[in-house]
Amino acid sequence: MSFIVSPQSLSFDQPLHLQGGGVLRQYDLSYETYGELNTDRNNAVLICHALNASHHVAGSYAGQDKSQGWWDNMVGPGKAVDTNRFFVIGVNNLGSCFGSTGPMHTNPETGRVYGADFPVVTVEDWVNAQARLLDRLGINQLAAVMGGSLGGMQALSWSLQFSHRVRHAVVIASSPNLNAENIAFNEVARRAIATDPDFHGGHFYAHGVIPKRGLRIARMLGHITYLSDDVMNTKFGRLLQEGETFKYSTQEVEFQIESYLRYQGDKFSEYFDANTYLLITRALDYFDPAAAYQGNLQQALARATAKFLLVSFTTDWRFAPARSREMVQALVANQREVSYAEIDAPHGHDAFLLDDPRYLSLVKAYFERISMEELA
Amino acid sequence: MSFIVSPQSLSFDQPLHLQGGGVLRQYDLSYETYGELNTDRNNAVLICHALNASHHVAGSYAGQDKSQGWWDNMVGPGKAVDTNRFFVIGVNNLGSCFGSTGPMHTNPETGRVYGADFPVVTVEDWVNAQARLLDRLGINQLAAVMGGSLGGMQALSWSLQFSHRVRHAVVIASSPNLNAENIAFNEVARRAIATDPDFHGGHFYAHGVIPKRGLRIARMLGHITYLSDDVMNTKFGRLLQEGETFKYSTQEVEFQIESYLRYQGDKFSEYFDANTYLLITRALDYFDPAAAYQGNLQQALARATAKFLLVSFTTDWRFAPARSREMVQALVANQREVSYAEIDAPHGHDAFLLDDPRYLSLVKAYFERISMEELA
Repeated sequence: MSFIVSPQSLSFDQPLHLQGGGVLRQYDLSYETYGELNTDRNNAVLICHALNASHHVAGSYAGQDKSQGWWDNMVGPGKAVDTNRFFVIGVNNLGSCFGSTGPMHTNPETGRVYGADFPVVTVEDWVNAQARLLDRLGINQLAAVMGGSLGGMQALSWSLQFSHRVRHAVVIASSPNLNAENIAFNEVARRAIATDPDFHGGHFYAHGVIPKRGLRIARMLGHITYLSDDVMNTKFGRLLQEGETFKYSTQEVEFQIESYLRYQGDKFSEYFDANTYLLITRALDYFDPAAAYQGNLQQALARATAKFLLVSFTTDWRFAPARSREMVQALVANQREVSYAEIDAPHGHDAFLLDDPRYLSLVKAYFERISMEELA
Repeated sequence: MSFIVSPQSLSFDQPLHLQGGGVLRQYDLSYETYGELNTDRNNAVLICHALNASHHVAGSYAGQDKSQGWWDNMVGPGKAVDTNRFFVIGVNNLGSCFGSTGPMHTNPETGRVYGADFPVVTVEDWVNAQARLLDRLGINQLAAVMGGSLGGMQALSWSLQFSHRVRHAVVIASSPNLNAENIAFNEVARRAIATDPDFHGGHFYAHGVIPKRGLRIARMLGHITYLSDDVMNTKFGRLLQEGETFKYSTQEVEFQIESYLRYQGDKFSEYFDANTYLLITRALDYFDPAAAYQGNLQQALARATAKFLLVSFTTDWRFAPARSREMVQALVANQREVSYAEIDAPHGHDAFLLDDPRYLSLVKAYFERISMEELA
């Protein structure tokens, strides 16, 4: 059994000026906290989420046994990020569909649901909003900011936007930007959603429909890129869904992998918001701190003063180890203190969420050192 | 300028019993020929096409300058497959949308357009139909059967189904079966088509609509898998479509790779048939000659008596070199004569269609040897 947690929310009235030119005049952020802020207020760890997750990082909700947070194996009492020592904050990003202000909420300026009118938000915007949450929680400096995948981009961006407020940045299975293939997969997913007749240009809420077909395709495609070729072959291979013979049908399920993907797609389309999917994949596309430095990542990361832990996974072809090594090299060239581990794991990009003992004990050791050296 | 060719067609009235249990009582096959059948009738080369191609392998149609066949760089006078020496046949497969009997034709048994009622066809069925075409053309034995990707599967299957009728099998950028990831990508494409409201269960012709949304998604996704990560980064990288700044939009094009994929998708949806896409991806999924031998490829290929040339491309992640090596090893274990080349090419799966000089000269040398040793 996991520990019991409750989500919280704070409203913000100071306008947030967004990188894309829009303004959010008023917004709410959903968040959760685990553990206690110490009297020195120097043991806070901010966890940033990726595409499909939320502020519900760890623990379970009362009466909901299966409601473990998405990084419950990483965060909790005695775990790698030990909530007996650290005050851990999970925060839901703007534009999400899990509590913080997003496309399905009412635009106070028009009185109508935002839908496609929700402004484009970037990693930098999210970090700015998260910084205001920390202000309200009375936290000046983070012991660590941490995330995997898109969450790792936020951790990296924290180290650049608020270098003085971050002692450690833990960047897992991430990348300094998306490459063409990453963008291409995002674009296919977005087109599947935006061309679904039930999308209605992003204002489907008013029509009482949901573009589930597009969401299903987006999720099926996403799932392929989260898994490694190897783990797919090991888990599914060419195993048939039923019996030993083919049905010889173009539309029925034949292989287990088809059934798995359809199930994942159906499940996702029941709870995830289509506009959120577009927004979050765009935040991924846009992130590129080196762009302002003619692509020179070393120059871009020169502002960072935090210590870094980077982790990649050998079979991750979405954010391959080579992308983590680019960041490591740029940081080392800036004479920053960097630890880097390339974990030999079969699970592809998904590995950052899974129970790999080497991975978890590595992160645990890193946080234990922070605790011993900095929390006294 | 390419040489001028004309498509031909033959009707077949002998029922074709299909692997999936269906029967085609009557069907037409579109084909083209290049060069002359010699008096010994031993210089015929059959070219099998992949997902998106047809019987129009080489040459151009009169008055249509841009109508070069899909392997015009490979087949023609003085080219790798030299039509001054060989009699080359391109044949369109059953279920296609380019001439041979397929889903958009009328089912003679019902008087209605086949649509989704067109029976599932397999690689083995195609080879059986191709064999009947050779019978009609008076060709008992092929000097070579040749194809890339799905076409390579047909070449391999020829060597098993009609071992005595094949002297050489040239299997390029192919695989002895699809792995889970390949099937997964096919399934996403099929779901995009089949869940498009304009698909109407495959009977869209009667509704006067075309499931273009699904076809676009299928093609965009396909294109990603045809290209290598490297070539995408080199060709597109993170280059923007217009200017130097973002529009900050979830639905407009920002990156050149998005524009490229949308263009490819749009173009494809104008000419390719949705039911054909489902049928051909299923033929890919089903092909697995080792299945009848508990997965033992060596046993499966023991029937083959042809000599083999296999070619793979280092950056092809759709049909990776490892899959070609499986076939090479199984053939070698059966003491067959096998030549194998792994071409260091940056272009991914698409490389088999492109002008790589090492690749083309390798195939040229192979066919020159056939010509010198066997055509006398």
